[in-house]
Amino acid sequence: MKKSVIIVILLSLSFMIFSQDQDSIMIKRIFNEALSSRIAYENLRYLCKNFKGRISGSPQAEAAVEYTREVMYKMGLDTVFLQELMVKRWVRGDRETATVISDISENHELTISGLGTSVGTGNEGITGKVMEVHSFEDLEKLGIENVRGRIVFFNRPMDPALFNTFSAYGQAADQRTQGASEASKYGAIGVIVRSLTTSLDDFPHTGVLYYEEGIPKIPAVCVSTIDAGLLSDLLSEDPKLLLNIVSNCRNLEEVPSYNVIGEMKGSVYPGQIITIGGHLDAWDTGEGAHDDGTGCIQSIEVLRLFQVLGIQPKRTIRAVMFMDEEIAQRGGLKYAELAAQNKENHYAAIESDGGGLSPRGFDFSATDDRLERLLDLQKYFEPYGIDQFSRGGGGVDIGPLQQFGTLLISPDPDMQRYFDYHHSPNDTFEQVNIRELQLGSASIAALVYLIDKYDL
Amino acid sequence: MKKSVIIVILLSLSFMIFSQDQDSIMIKRIFNEALSSRIAYENLRYLCKNFKGRISGSPQAEAAVEYTREVMYKMGLDTVFLQELMVKRWVRGDRETATVISDISENHELTISGLGTSVGTGNEGITGKVMEVHSFEDLEKLGIENVRGRIVFFNRPMDPALFNTFSAYGQAADQRTQGASEASKYGAIGVIVRSLTTSLDDFPHTGVLYYEEGIPKIPAVCVSTIDAGLLSDLLSEDPKLLLNIVSNCRNLEEVPSYNVIGEMKGSVYPGQIITIGGHLDAWDTGEGAHDDGTGCIQSIEVLRLFQVLGIQPKRTIRAVMFMDEEIAQRGGLKYAELAAQNKENHYAAIESDGGGLSPRGFDFSATDDRLERLLDLQKYFEPYGIDQFSRGGGGVDIGPLQQFGTLLISPDPDMQRYFDYHHSPNDTFEQVNIRELQLGSASIAALVYLIDKYDL
Repeated sequence: MKKSVIIVILLSLSFMIFSQDQDSIMIKRIFNEALSSRIAYENLRYLCKNFKGRISGSPQAEAAVEYTREVMYKMGLDTVFLQELMVKRWVRGDRETATVISDISENHELTISGLGTSVGTGNEGITGKVMEVHSFEDLEKLGIENVRGRIVFFNRPMDPALFNTFSAYGQAADQRTQGASEASKYGAIGVIVRSLTTSLDDFPHTGVLYYEEGIPKIPAVCVSTIDAGLLSDLLSEDPKLLLNIVSNCRNLEEVPSYNVIGEMKGSVYPGQIITIGGHLDAWDTGEGAHDDGTGCIQSIEVLRLFQVLGIQPKRTIRAVMFMDEEIAQRGGLKYAELAAQNKENHYAAIESDGGGLSPRGFDFSATDDRLERLLDLQKYFEPYGIDQFSRGGGGVDIGPLQQFGTLLISPDPDMQRYFDYHHSPNDTFEQVNIRELQLGSASIAALVYLIDKYDL
Repeated sequence: MKKSVIIVILLSLSFMIFSQDQDSIMIKRIFNEALSSRIAYENLRYLCKNFKGRISGSPQAEAAVEYTREVMYKMGLDTVFLQELMVKRWVRGDRETATVISDISENHELTISGLGTSVGTGNEGITGKVMEVHSFEDLEKLGIENVRGRIVFFNRPMDPALFNTFSAYGQAADQRTQGASEASKYGAIGVIVRSLTTSLDDFPHTGVLYYEEGIPKIPAVCVSTIDAGLLSDLLSEDPKLLLNIVSNCRNLEEVPSYNVIGEMKGSVYPGQIITIGGHLDAWDTGEGAHDDGTGCIQSIEVLRLFQVLGIQPKRTIRAVMFMDEEIAQRGGLKYAELAAQNKENHYAAIESDGGGLSPRGFDFSATDDRLERLLDLQKYFEPYGIDQFSRGGGGVDIGPLQQFGTLLISPDPDMQRYFDYHHSPNDTFEQVNIRELQLGSASIAALVYLIDKYDL
């Protein structure tokens, strides 16, 4: 080998090593700054405490739009702007009760909550016998003759034996999302669904339902897991008991709302966009802390970390607060629609919507060769306990960007506690640990730093 | 190569693969059972709610001895027995106050707690000017002339930038453990120490202190991090302010107490012992949930998992509730002393004392060749998010077994939240997530299953 070739190789090698060292140092600075600052945590507190129950179209959601716009504006970002969209408007009523009426025991009030987009029962409510089932197959076996005129009680728990709580959620969620229409096909007058949570608690965990077109819409509520157990026990004692459900919720006209976007312009490729997002809307029964105040605030925090540390990204970095993730995902759809319309180049998108819990890894939707280079970045994160880089990645709000070949990324936080909070009054600021929140922000910032620098 | 050799190799290979499959299946059964059972969680609730504040020598500690003995006895273990030991007896008084008295502002009451083994102030308390310092070097610089007659305020925070919260704790703990004697050397009349926690909260986080022999013993209390900030601010405004501290705690005569041990006899090597332990005593201000009710209950749960799944260990497995970890570590010392006396063969020991939080790995104190084989076991745990097997391992209670060459193992749970609870009234049952607790038990059971089966 020629001497000059050897020198070139040695120089390249030492540059790579030097460069890796430099990157490790920058990533350490990112983590240090995130862990030493209370700004994101206090922003989250403000969001949760002042704009709780910010379901799409609500005054709280509109105030949260204004608040996050203001926070980003005050940071002196290059651009802060809104994207208008229309959202469904579903409003919980002032009466939500479920009363068990039995000839052989005293009445019981169950802890319930109406499901999002459900039709109301009116103030009188609905009253009927209860048919407990665990699946749509159960309904089919029972047939119209056993279901007609009844309230169907879906009581299949999330499988506790699954380590992956999101898988357990996925396996049980059909009861909530489609249970009303499925039961309606057999003549049911309403449904009551066991809350989707890994915990045995006294919170109703609400969420959206989807009515099937052409099937009569019947009211649907969820019941806390403790009271699901109680109702099941009471039914064993007295199969003829009656359940009265009152939930005077209403579906109103659509109203305008907004995605909120803050932008740091790229220094080399300003036309290429890296989106970091969370969703600003949250269920009306809680504070929307883990779902998904943390995702929003972490997105903003990434920009703050870049500012404070003087990182000038080559590409444009956007923090996006998506609206309407919970009901109809209009924010994500609008974002992609405008991207197409404006011929934007979306290089990568990260959606943080798994809670502000200890970061464990990232999932990537990428081509094989790209994936290999992404997985190789894991080494930078291992000192921070983040060592699970794998295939996958996406999210409800960034999913529509897939049509552009955008690299989609999901942070992968610890998933054991998430469903303790999910969609319930228990999703409060107090349930967020400052360090877990900070580590999440730092990990996203570090990843954005690397994928921007190395043109991955 | 001869055909017969090839056949032998193929057979061995297929046996190894079969055996690995079998092990993966057994480990899956262990995790399934742990995640599907509420028994350990309910035992923990009982321990926390009925025997809170079970510091060594207290009636609550003695009742907890009786309770855990009873739980293990009812499980039908081969042997359940106690090991008697003498413990120090330190009793918090009924008066604990710290009042800031200033000529230029109103009085302030600080949230404090006496440090374990501290001498009391008497009912009148001590009153003096305050000298804020961040280190023992500060004391040396100030010298006797600036410290004499004063109350020293140690206010160096745990470093939030450290990912490893136990390192941050280690770097700040000298203020609590040795601060009183160090300050006393310069003539201080008492010390008030910033609580050792990563959170900014209103809980005093207590803990033991060690007086240096020959140095006058002065009273010591800790102050919540919020009030440490307040006191520092008040001192900036008025350096001449006075602090009155009342803490009428007392050190009494030593009393007998016990380690509690439940044993499942080994089927092949009954003389070889695998110890799984936690400590039963806990600070008197909290419920001792994460520190260390979870370690005790997980140890018992491992035996239950073996029973339920019909696992017959080759070696004797012991669940040990060590007494007196918090004050003088007499339980661990007695355990090793009796092991020597009875010529016991201690094959391995696991101490779970890092909180009932998401398990992330295990640390091993082992020889290099043994370590390699242990690290190789990680593959069985990765499906459960446990992928950080590394060198290290030990613990206050099992440490004395090192003299016998025992393999020492520490579970390595997520460490971000631990110091939110540590030694404070915030260490309650409610702070324990059932799934994190269950995963911890399962991971220990799975590890014990493997190290027993494979003679590691």
